[in-house]
Amino acid sequence: MYKIGIIGDGYTAADLLRLLAGHDEMEVVSILSTENVGRRVDNLYPQLTGFTDLVCQESNLDIIKNECDAVFLALPHGLSVAMAIELLPAGIRCVDLGADFRLKDARLYEKYYDKTHEAPQMLEKAVYGLPELYRDKIRVTDLVANPGCFPTGAILPLAPLLAAQLLEPEGIIVDSKTGVTGAGRTLRESSHFCEVNEGIHAYGVGTHRHGPEIAQELSFAAGRPVEMIFTPHLVPMNRGILTTAYARLQPGVSAAAVREVLEGKYREEKFVQVLPPGLMPHTKWVYGSNMVQIGIYTDETSGRVILVSALDNLTKGASGQAIQNLNIMLGISESKSLNFPGVHP
Amino acid sequence: MYKIGIIGDGYTAADLLRLLAGHDEMEVVSILSTENVGRRVDNLYPQLTGFTDLVCQESNLDIIKNECDAVFLALPHGLSVAMAIELLPAGIRCVDLGADFRLKDARLYEKYYDKTHEAPQMLEKAVYGLPELYRDKIRVTDLVANPGCFPTGAILPLAPLLAAQLLEPEGIIVDSKTGVTGAGRTLRESSHFCEVNEGIHAYGVGTHRHGPEIAQELSFAAGRPVEMIFTPHLVPMNRGILTTAYARLQPGVSAAAVREVLEGKYREEKFVQVLPPGLMPHTKWVYGSNMVQIGIYTDETSGRVILVSALDNLTKGASGQAIQNLNIMLGISESKSLNFPGVHP
Amino acid sequence: MYKIGIIGDGYTAADLLRLLAGHDEMEVVSILSTENVGRRVDNLYPQLTGFTDLVCQESNLDIIKNECDAVFLALPHGLSVAMAIELLPAGIRCVDLGADFRLKDARLYEKYYDKTHEAPQMLEKAVYGLPELYRDKIRVTDLVANPGCFPTGAILPLAPLLAAQLLEPEGIIVDSKTGVTGAGRTLRESSHFCEVNEGIHAYGVGTHRHGPEIAQELSFAAGRPVEMIFTPHLVPMNRGILTTAYARLQPGVSAAAVREVLEGKYREEKFVQVLPPGLMPHTKWVYGSNMVQIGIYTDETSGRVILVSALDNLTKGASGQAIQNLNIMLGISESKSLNFPGVHP
Amino acid sequence: MYKIGIIGDGYTAADLLRLLAGHDEMEVVSILSTENVGRRVDNLYPQLTGFTDLVCQESNLDIIKNECDAVFLALPHGLSVAMAIELLPAGIRCVDLGADFRLKDARLYEKYYDKTHEAPQMLEKAVYGLPELYRDKIRVTDLVANPGCFPTGAILPLAPLLAAQLLEPEGIIVDSKTGVTGAGRTLRESSHFCEVNEGIHAYGVGTHRHGPEIAQELSFAAGRPVEMIFTPHLVPMNRGILTTAYARLQPGVSAAAVREVLEGKYREEKFVQVLPPGLMPHTKWVYGSNMVQIGIYTDETSGRVILVSALDNLTKGASGQAIQNLNIMLGISESKSLNFPGVHP
Repeated sequence: MYKIGIIGDGYTAADLLRLLAGHDEMEVVSILSTENVGRRVDNLYPQLTGFTDLVCQESNLDIIKNECDAVFLALPHGLSVAMAIELLPAGIRCVDLGADFRLKDARLYEKYYDKTHEAPQMLEKAVYGLPELYRDKIRVTDLVANPGCFPTGAILPLAPLLAAQLLEPEGIIVDSKTGVTGAGRTLRESSHFCEVNEGIHAYGVGTHRHGPEIAQELSFAAGRPVEMIFTPHLVPMNRGILTTAYARLQPGVSAAAVREVLEGKYREEKFVQVLPPGLMPHTKWVYGSNMVQIGIYTDETSGRVILVSALDNLTKGASGQAIQNLNIMLGISESKSLNFPGVHP
Repeated sequence: MYKIGIIGDGYTAADLLRLLAGHDEMEVVSILSTENVGRRVDNLYPQLTGFTDLVCQESNLDIIKNECDAVFLALPHGLSVAMAIELLPAGIRCVDLGADFRLKDARLYEKYYDKTHEAPQMLEKAVYGLPELYRDKIRVTDLVANPGCFPTGAILPLAPLLAAQLLEPEGIIVDSKTGVTGAGRTLRESSHFCEVNEGIHAYGVGTHRHGPEIAQELSFAAGRPVEMIFTPHLVPMNRGILTTAYARLQPGVSAAAVREVLEGKYREEKFVQVLPPGLMPHTKWVYGSNMVQIGIYTDETSGRVILVSALDNLTKGASGQAIQNLNIMLGISESKSLNFPGVHP
Repeated sequence: MYKIGIIGDGYTAADLLRLLAGHDEMEVVSILSTENVGRRVDNLYPQLTGFTDLVCQESNLDIIKNECDAVFLALPHGLSVAMAIELLPAGIRCVDLGADFRLKDARLYEKYYDKTHEAPQMLEKAVYGLPELYRDKIRVTDLVANPGCFPTGAILPLAPLLAAQLLEPEGIIVDSKTGVTGAGRTLRESSHFCEVNEGIHAYGVGTHRHGPEIAQELSFAAGRPVEMIFTPHLVPMNRGILTTAYARLQPGVSAAAVREVLEGKYREEKFVQVLPPGLMPHTKWVYGSNMVQIGIYTDETSGRVILVSALDNLTKGASGQAIQNLNIMLGISESKSLNFPGVHP
Repeated sequence: MYKIGIIGDGYTAADLLRLLAGHDEMEVVSILSTENVGRRVDNLYPQLTGFTDLVCQESNLDIIKNECDAVFLALPHGLSVAMAIELLPAGIRCVDLGADFRLKDARLYEKYYDKTHEAPQMLEKAVYGLPELYRDKIRVTDLVANPGCFPTGAILPLAPLLAAQLLEPEGIIVDSKTGVTGAGRTLRESSHFCEVNEGIHAYGVGTHRHGPEIAQELSFAAGRPVEMIFTPHLVPMNRGILTTAYARLQPGVSAAAVREVLEGKYREEKFVQVLPPGLMPHTKWVYGSNMVQIGIYTDETSGRVILVSALDNLTKGASGQAIQNLNIMLGISESKSLNFPGVHP
């Protein structure tokens, strides 16, 4: 039984605990907090009553070093680097759910996160934790940068088509719609019930931090720079991201070729489902689960493809994927504790 | 591995399939339908993609008799009696999620369900499937009447207090608030999104069918007739029932006595949690799970108690409890495939 | 054209501005704030774009004294007394949307609001601003205590029946369900979208501040002390309060008598609608409007009545009723700027 | 006082009645129905209680011809043509809220609506009822084709920029998100509460009927064919459409030029608001009102513009715009009965 630590007590920490409650090879032995030290976790999150007796401890990394084999860093950006620097040499495998190791270019990090990166030399070493693209690297690393929720939904449908050179690398539009848990538990007017419920709006237009992350991975897939616009929208629901991506086909590419590439890429994948022709995904179908569903619409006449993906932002978009990554890192069955359907209706 | 059949393809059938996907001693081998014969179940319910290859079959009971050890009857009221009459002699254990075997008094059934009961002699034999009250009887029966969703939430907090003679058996008020899945998948104006969203209203005031079911069980617990009023309300959410019950204490009963009875009754129960003083349940904390949470507020001065319970109407209020019952009937660990926390946030 | 001031910039202030946009005898000339001084109101509330050029001013009462005929105090409790003491002698009519002048008994105020009342002698003078009960007094006062949102929904159906001695004055249950705007714009975990959406829970059980306010007015109506329990619940919607009230009939009271009293009382009232037999109100039907709808269910056999009322907590439950009161105080047509239907669907 | 008829009793009819309740130059004298003949309108729509005594009449056009000056055809497509043919010669001004007169090309109508147009010669004569573009023509016609809800939100931001030749006419993406009232009151699984709530999905991808309508008007504005992709999404809310439109700037076009064209075009318009730089619209800010809000984000480096618009699909997207059109046709003040802010929060 691997001993696991969690640093942070927000929504992604809560979803880690929900998902790990059924894991028979990992046991969460400590959770570190800053604001809730001394509080029982099931007092913070009463849905966990009966599933944990953990109490939030102060953020002393010795606890992790002494007790754990691996740790989930479930923190806002900017806090993980110093921790990873301390934990990795102690042999603690780290999965960072924050943004500190996702961008390979420290200058982009600085531009988008308003912060000089403290250890740019670690960026090359960290593996971008999208198992469907980087499984082999994840297997042998001790530092995974868990992808952002929007990037997961955007990269999975687009990257294989770019890698196969089926799409033009310019003018890609990624229009995403997310539930509110993506903004976390921190109190903000933009997450206040009355300001969100019964309405929808765009935010971070042209400036959202997940934009360069998506562009980086699409460019890696394409083997050349990809020009892309990303716009997120806030939907009055708790969980779920729907991503509608628009791209132009390279000349002569058929609808069948598009489908063939995506179905081929994901046929053996446990957590990615390419839906049959005519069916488009619904975020409710993956509610609470680690699945991603992808729908394809190709218009050969105009040479355009519309790809729609759905995932649960806290699960495949964060905590579920983090567990999937750690399962791989530890040599455990990749789908352990993640192999269940969504809660619908 | 027990072979299981499901008759019906509505929301409770879907939740049975969700919950049974992780059951390692039961396998659903057939699902019978009337409206969707020939359709794949994961086409009806795409959240089940990857978890089942079942196709809806026509409602021929021979399929069940030939292939199954047990069956869930997930049907509207009025259809189960004839099926049970045919299946029981064939040795098929039956859990009826409908209302046909819940009321012990066939005249009440006739009054509230507008239908003469076809086999009143079976009513005595059927066991009311609330394991926390009737576990021993469930263990040895082959016919369980799975309780209604509202009754589950009302009986669990009230029955032990009535059994202990702590409450006056008159003037009990049960004010319940339910999510919309309780009304099923059938299209009705009252379940039309625009008529439900962003509003709340009472329905079935004074006439709802779960009223006599609650009264029956409270009277059994009290050992005498209990007078009770039940009012359900429709809340703009998918899942969850919150029940607020008001009762008068018998003279001299203390707050401590109330708490002691409920905590004592449910201390060893896996699926009933009595919350600590000052904490009241929230339906979100049991979303998708088989838990019931109960909060207690006793005012000794006025001699009144307010009991608040929360459950998921499709899970502990229907399909989860049905599996709990069948686990007991088959001698399987009672919490098998049900032992996980709710999805929150 | 009367010159009107508003002190406060929360949701009730916003709804005052929405409603007054169409008022042709009142003009809002100043709005005082503490946190948003210097900000345009339509920047705070973009729905008002094009309808106001007001800028929030600092809370200097001279502004009101110099420019206004009347003022709405849209403030948290505890702040209005000192302001009223200063404004009333200057001839400014005051409508207090807070709680400072509602309870006639300063000891109750102290108990429930944790604060010594600064001017208990003013409590007798202040008129409880429920026009349907106190119109004549409102007409001649310069200080109105605008009722709480829950009390408005509870008192309107119950008071006339208590006044007519049709109900027993003990054991009345008031079970209310409110939208989230009732908690205001202040950031709190309990108003955080992810904690509220897709769930329902009770709060303030046995201790909510609107309990004594309801009891006071029901006792005044009955002419003797009324014993009552009040429980509020939070519903995932922005606006609306549904109140389900349970009471016992005095011996021999018929269903017809109950209906006759309520219909008689409200037949000429513009903003109270007694629904026909068999119809129960829905909060959506009064969304954004100043209407209250009341449904009646009487069970003569058990001698019980269930009264259900629906209103918009920000409108008839706060700002609409405040305008109704000021219309009366200023001798303007009572329904001026309030005479429009709810927004449904 | 003009006498007005309404044919149809769905949600757009209900919103017409809500909005016309405050109109002092129009009076609705008859409403024709097929399914609800004999029912009071306030029984169908209890929010109208106290505002109308109308009873649904059978669909006999003589009623309109004898009693009305003008009529709103609030019907599904395919029914309006025959009615207009009969009503126009009788001098009845017609505003068709359906789709029968929107497309100028009868072949497109046939392709997208699966129906041969019964009177293609009327298409030229009918005026597309977007007052901000076609006010002068509306003033002198007796037949207005009221625009679709999505087209209103897409055309208003894009058309002026295309007319000014600031945008490339190819590769425009219109990604829209709508509330559920857009699907009307007809019972469908896709409008069933449990299938919509707490989720989002795309529908009609590549095939939605509003696609050619948008393309038509954008092409008229540009003076040449515009290539455009339109994708609608269903959001769990009642009212509101948010449209995110992506386009490429013509070489050398500045952000200032984009803003200048849109602000200039709409500066004098009562119902279109171009938001200041940095602010993006929210559908809640126009909830229940006739306003459209437009936000602009221009990226000069990449030569792209993102336009976001918000409107209420039942009001500016249907009934409010219909009244605006009829006000113009009848020479009444254009904003009569429409000049009020949205209901927020």
